Amino acid sequence: MWIQRTIQLNEKSRGFHLITREIQQQLPELHSVQVGLLHLFIQHTSASLTINENADPTVRSDMEAHINRMVPENAPYYKHTYEGADDMPAHIKASLLGNSVSIPISNGEMALGTWQGIYLGEHRDYGGKRRILATIQGQ
Amino acid sequence: MWIQRTIQLNEKSRGFHLITREIQQQLPELHSVQVGLLHLFIQHTSASLTINENADPTVRSDMEAHINRMVPENAPYYKHTYEGADDMPAHIKASLLGNSVSIPISNGEMALGTWQGIYLGEHRDYGGKRRILATIQGQ
Amino acid sequence: MWIQRTIQLNEKSRGFHLITREIQQQLPELHSVQVGLLHLFIQHTSASLTINENADPTVRSDMEAHINRMVPENAPYYKHTYEGADDMPAHIKASLLGNSVSIPISNGEMALGTWQGIYLGEHRDYGGKRRILATIQGQ
Repeated sequence: MWIQRTIQLNEKSRGFHLITREIQQQLPELHSVQVGLLHLFIQHTSASLTINENADPTVRSDMEAHINRMVPENAPYYKHTYEGADDMPAHIKASLLGNSVSIPISNGEMALGTWQGIYLGEHRDYGGKRRILATIQGQ
Repeated sequence: MWIQRTIQLNEKSRGFHLITREIQQQLPELHSVQVGLLHLFIQHTSASLTINENADPTVRSDMEAHINRMVPENAPYYKHTYEGADDMPAHIKASLLGNSVSIPISNGEMALGTWQGIYLGEHRDYGGKRRILATIQGQ
Repeated sequence: MWIQRTIQLNEKSRGFHLITREIQQQLPELHSVQVGLLHLFIQHTSASLTINENADPTVRSDMEAHINRMVPENAPYYKHTYEGADDMPAHIKASLLGNSVSIPISNGEMALGTWQGIYLGEHRDYGGKRRILATIQGQ
């Protein structure tokens, strides 16, 4: 069984956002898969998908605080600067964190650990609505 | 064909550990797959899975030395600090390195390059036993 | 349907390279897949695969400039140094960026976003020809 569907996320502010529920709600077909994989692929180069802690919002804000220092704005060696100070750092962050996640499906549910959730990393100041292509396979 | 199985890793010290053999031994079904994919997904948010050099242990210790500087403990901007100095850095490292790997299967074996092995990144001082959900698919 | 094929890339200079077309040309079978996934796995530990902006070459050179600062050569704590100053940083960069990408297939084409392309990160000064194992599955 293969299912493929585009998920449009509501616009988010810059930073990391827990989107597990938003994804689940748009993929009711998950319930019909006994064993399989869910592949989520963000079709942009300045936002990322990753899996991290689902409970404490300060994990998300600390992650944003740290990655802004690891990949600073206005580095003197950037040449790709005409879309704003947040542009080139957003591309670098997207590649460091990754643009897709693959999540096992067990008994009709994503087999996330107790403390795991899906994060959208929005790395632009005004990134707009983001598009994720979800591919479900399994039996 | 789909196979899904939980692998419990023995407790590891903080740092990077080569776990290729530990994974292989727990997945005898690999031998019955001619072509396919093995997906390994760690169900924790303070440890990671990655693929790197399988021969020289100093690659693992250098990687730990470097990532501890890239993602330091006790950064003044961390707010998620109540589980200890190693807590928030562990979450950041987990997202930078990733919580899953997908490895092609060819003729009943993982199709790793000559020098490739599977690393567990244990990013907590005392992370305990870690759980990996392995999903094999193929024919 | 499962297809697996080794792709040999031409030798590239150190830095990031757009390889979308080189990959497409070697995978004509993509056209026969209505829905599926393409998994690309580089069988080396000092080069990486990632997805990023496909238009402006300064994104690639800025990414190289930044990652060379994030993961410097000749750090005093490196012990794995006998293959040259570019050796240990290459291993670290490979794990940060990742050694594989999974790309959805829709209607016979990779379902990349408008601005997305596949990057090879060549992290050695003279990395030689790189080998990617491509696995296509779908229907």
